Order: sequence, then C-alpha cells, then structure tokens
Amino acid sequence: MPDPTSPKTFKLTIEYDGSAFHGWQRQKNDRTVQETIEKALLRMTGDKTPLIGSGRTDAGVHARGQVASFKTSARLDAQVFVNGLNSLLPDDVRICACDPVAERFHARFDVRLKHYRYRIVNRPIAPAIGRQFVWHIRKPLDAAAMREAAALFVGTHDFKAFEGTGSPRSHTVRTVSVSAVKETGGGNLTYDIAANGFLRFMVRNIVGTLVEVGLGKISAEKVPVILQSRDRSCAGATAPPRGLFLVNVSYPPK
Amino acid sequence: MPDPTSPKTFKLTIEYDGSAFHGWQRQKNDRTVQETIEKALLRMTGDKTPLIGSGRTDAGVHARGQVASFKTSARLDAQVFVNGLNSLLPDDVRICACDPVAERFHARFDVRLKHYRYRIVNRPIAPAIGRQFVWHIRKPLDAAAMREAAALFVGTHDFKAFEGTGSPRSHTVRTVSVSAVKETGGGNLTYDIAANGFLRFMVRNIVGTLVEVGLGKISAEKVPVILQSRDRSCAGATAPPRGLFLVNVSYPPK
Repeated sequence: MPDPTSPKTFKLTIEYDGSAFHGWQRQKNDRTVQETIEKALLRMTGDKTPLIGSGRTDAGVHARGQVASFKTSARLDAQVFVNGLNSLLPDDVRICACDPVAERFHARFDVRLKHYRYRIVNRPIAPAIGRQFVWHIRKPLDAAAMREAAALFVGTHDFKAFEGTGSPRSHTVRTVSVSAVKETGGGNLTYDIAANGFLRFMVRNIVGTLVEVGLGKISAEKVPVILQSRDRSCAGATAPPRGLFLVNVSYPPK
Repeated sequence: MPDPTSPKTFKLTIEYDGSAFHGWQRQKNDRTVQETIEKALLRMTGDKTPLIGSGRTDAGVHARGQVASFKTSARLDAQVFVNGLNSLLPDDVRICACDPVAERFHARFDVRLKHYRYRIVNRPIAPAIGRQFVWHIRKPLDAAAMREAAALFVGTHDFKAFEGTGSPRSHTVRTVSVSAVKETGGGNLTYDIAANGFLRFMVRNIVGTLVEVGLGKISAEKVPVILQSRDRSCAGATAPPRGLFLVNVSYPPK
C-alpha cells in the first residue's frame, strides 16, 4: 500500500511568451520561467521544490507545450495547481494542464519526442503586429529549395555541425522524425522539426542554414556534406530566438 | 500645367501594434502613433507637416491598415517614404504603402468604409502567447446566439446607445454593411464589422454587448430594443482595446 504521507509527483504543461524571460533555466540575476514557477509553487505548497523541465529553452524562445515535473507533500489536487499557479503567475506564463504521474517520472530523462516550430515572415515590410514571434526576412526565399533541404535532416545523424559552440555533448547523434518547411500564405513560412532530442541551438542553427539555402548561398544538396563535416563553421548562422516555439513534448505511455 | 513647386499629397497605409501607444492622436505627454510618424516625416522632409488620419484609434487598439495623408514640398518618391520612414520608425509601427493622391484627398472626410476586427479567445486558460491581441473570456460563450445578435446590427441605425459617454456627435446614425461573428477553432472567435463610420467606442461597446449575449445575460432579440433606446446604459460594457484591429479603410476610386 502506498504511504499516504509520501510526496506525489505532478507533470505541468506550460505555455510561455519568452520575450521577457532569460530562457527556462534558473539563473542568478535574471528572470527565468523555471524560477518564476518555482516561486509560485513555494507560495502554494510551502515546499522549496525543484521544477524539472524537459530541457532548457534559450532566452527569447517561446513554448506552447513545455513540460516540467515536481514533487510535493502538499495534499492538493492537480486542478488546484492549475488554478492556483495561474492566479499567482505573471500573464506571460500559463499552466495549461497538471497531471499526477508515477513517482519515477522524470521530465527530462523520459522524453521520447520533442516538436519545435519556427516561424518566418518573408516579405519586403516587417510586421509590426506579432513581430515578437517571427523572423522577418526581406529578401525573397526559395521555399522549394528550403523544403528539399529540410527533408535531408530526417533520419539518424550526427548533428555536431549544428551544435552551439561552448556547450559540447558527448553524444551528438539524434534521430529526426519530422523536418518540413510549409508555406502558409502572405509570405509566412513555418518549419517543423521533431526529434528524440536536440543539441543546444540545434533548431536555430538548422533554420539559419535553411534560410541560407532559401537565399541561394548554400545549395540544398550540401546538407549531407555539412552533417558529415561535424564542423559548426560549415553550417549557417544561428536564427534569432523569437521565431522559435517548443510546441510539444511526448513521453512513453504510462 | 501643375506648379512643380506646389506641395504634393501622399497617402500612407500603416500597421501598428497599439500595445505601447496611447492611441493614434497626438497628445501632450503620451506616445502616440500620429506624433511618432510626424516626427519621422519631419526628419525626412524638414517640414513640420500634420499627418491626417482616417480617424482616431483608442489607446491599446491595433491597426493593420490605418490610413493617413500628408502634404510635402519635398521632392521624394512614394517608395522613398516607405523605406525612409520604416528606417526611422520604432518597430511597433510600419509603413506598408505610400501612394501619391490628388491634392484634395482627405484621409478623414473621404472615408467610404471602415473595417474593424475584434478577436476573442473563449476557453478556461488564458493564452500567454499573443495575449496582447485578444480578449480572453473564461466562461463558455454561446456563439450561435452571438452570431444571431451580430446580424441585427446590419443596416442603417442610430447607434447613440453604443457611443462612449463624454464624446457626443451630433449625428449618430451610421450604416453597417458587415457585422458577423465567426468561430475559427480552439475557442477563437472573431467579430468583423464594416460601416461608413463609427462613433467613439462603438465597436468595443457592440462587442461588450455581444459577449453579454454569449453569456446569456442579454437575449439576441434585445439588440433592436437597445438600438431604439438610444441609451448607453442599456448596452453591454466596453470590451478591452487589446482585441481590436482597424483592418482596412476604403475610399472612393480616384
């Protein structure tokens, strides 16, 4: 029989506008999403409980479905956490759902798939409305070439060439299941990528490379060559954070 | 033959994110769209030329297609104004187009039709992303009742009951050609209204009334009674500005 006084584990699904956050991860002097929610949890439960995210997002990156977990001895229902946290949190971060999970659930180690979306606006005049959520590119992009290049990221590859410098991982092989550029009218392009894991700056470095393909600076067929190089300097520049959304994080079924 | 030294008239089409503006109209101590563009025009032309808008928008209201006109003796092409103004303006206001017009063109007096859109998000949890551009309503709205009520605004009516207090117009009759509520999925509702002119707060007072219909506080059939009352206190509360967009302003063909 489970001990009724033992802590319970909850999983949060979180939306945030990253514009005014210095990313997900707690830092000494900057406003971060993790710290903001931890403070609200402390007020609700009296526990200084660490909130474990599915992974970091960089400063300025947004999330529609970030996932994080925490343990608490407070005897509160999941729905009470949704309402209580939302009443305590600033309006640029919202708790969309709270679910009780098994004690062994780990928001980072158990990730099966992550889905990111990147939004580009390609037209002469930048948007005023919603400019915080897109990368505006003035020069015409060849969307067909970008689509072709994007498809070449699907599969299991060593993504070392697309890893941000200064944050090396010992294993740089990842499996990408979706990598697709779509035109949605009015000069709007979206890029969707889903993988079992991502290296630091990996999505933004892929997007920067796809844009160079769209501008004709790199040919689409060069993508496998860049992957094989394992050399960051062969890939394109890092796309700005404001166009990037963490859409969804999936875990194995219970 | 036209005098080559006489001033020329230009029409601007303007997009702005109203979040950080105290509305369109120039004010003593507040940041407004009109003043911001006038300052940029002064830097470009050396002329202190007044910018005449199609009408005011309130603090916090956005525009995708506000129209304004100005006269200048500067010998600059229309496209030079687009590029020059956009390089001088802050990024929450953009010039989408500049067109030379007849000297007698008047951005306010010549308006034939204005189109506004209002965006509502109807679901338990507020959005974090894009919250500056919608009115979030937690309680379920009856969209069918709102559609029915919206249709009753079409036609020529006295809109005195929907005019903001403290800003009376002598003529309060306007002709509404479009008034429609549409569900666009995910709890998103849009309300479109087009008319030959609007009273102050008219769209926001109509939206506030439609929401009271959606909440079951007012029945749709009461709309004609409210119109006939000419009494502001019979209509609903004023909807917040952040959901409102001036979409388009039309003028008679040249």
